[in-house]
Amino acid sequence: MNSPSVSQHRYTHQNEPAWSKSEKAIAHRAFDAALEHELQEVIQEAKQKADQIKEPADLWDLEHCLTQRRKEIDRKYDYRYSQLDLVFGRLLREKWINEEDLRGLGEDKMRAIRSYAKFFAGTDPA
Amino acid sequence: MNSPSVSQHRYTHQNEPAWSKSEKAIAHRAFDAALEHELQEVIQEAKQKADQIKEPADLWDLEHCLTQRRKEIDRKYDYRYSQLDLVFGRLLREKWINEEDLRGLGEDKMRAIRSYAKFFAGTDPA
Repeated sequence: MNSPSVSQHRYTHQNEPAWSKSEKAIAHRAFDAALEHELQEVIQEAKQKADQIKEPADLWDLEHCLTQRRKEIDRKYDYRYSQLDLVFGRLLREKWINEEDLRGLGEDKMRAIRSYAKFFAGTDPA
Repeated sequence: MNSPSVSQHRYTHQNEPAWSKSEKAIAHRAFDAALEHELQEVIQEAKQKADQIKEPADLWDLEHCLTQRRKEIDRKYDYRYSQLDLVFGRLLREKWINEEDLRGLGEDKMRAIRSYAKFFAGTDPA
């Protein structure tokens, strides 16, 4: 269930500022770098898990983890300009990017991104 | 409530030769050994594949292979006495067991198993 503030935020696209050409370039670079970084981490995790397999249960555990990670990454990395504030907010919260990677985006976008980052901080397990 | 056809089907196994206690013990041992052997091979394949991962596509290829192997093994290792001739025929064909592992089974069963092994040989890709 979405909190009212999130729903409200999701459906105001027509009022959102457009992404300029230079902002799109920044967004693309930050998005690709975060995705690459996260995929490299999954690769390292998979190698480590595979290395530690001792019995069949470990094997199916690896399969399950890979499936989960693939689905999670598919859902998370949604490159639509209407979604990017939310996506970057989450990536910022999870430290796949930092504010420096987003330097050059308009202050309105940075405010929205930081606000999502705070939202995701609130959803972290205690 | 059972449908007539299902009930009928369930009880047609009375024409098949029963498995004696000693045959069941032989079957169980051969079945478990083959499964263990095959799972160990999947573990080795997974470790090797993981070790060779260079890019994300290799990662999802590993996931896909594991899913396929799990489903194939689930389907193949069907320990129902009504299915065992077929199961052992396939395992014999694929060399997960040899005739020696089945020594002690009645000649009627061995005939059926060899016949299934031949059938599976016919379905091998050319």
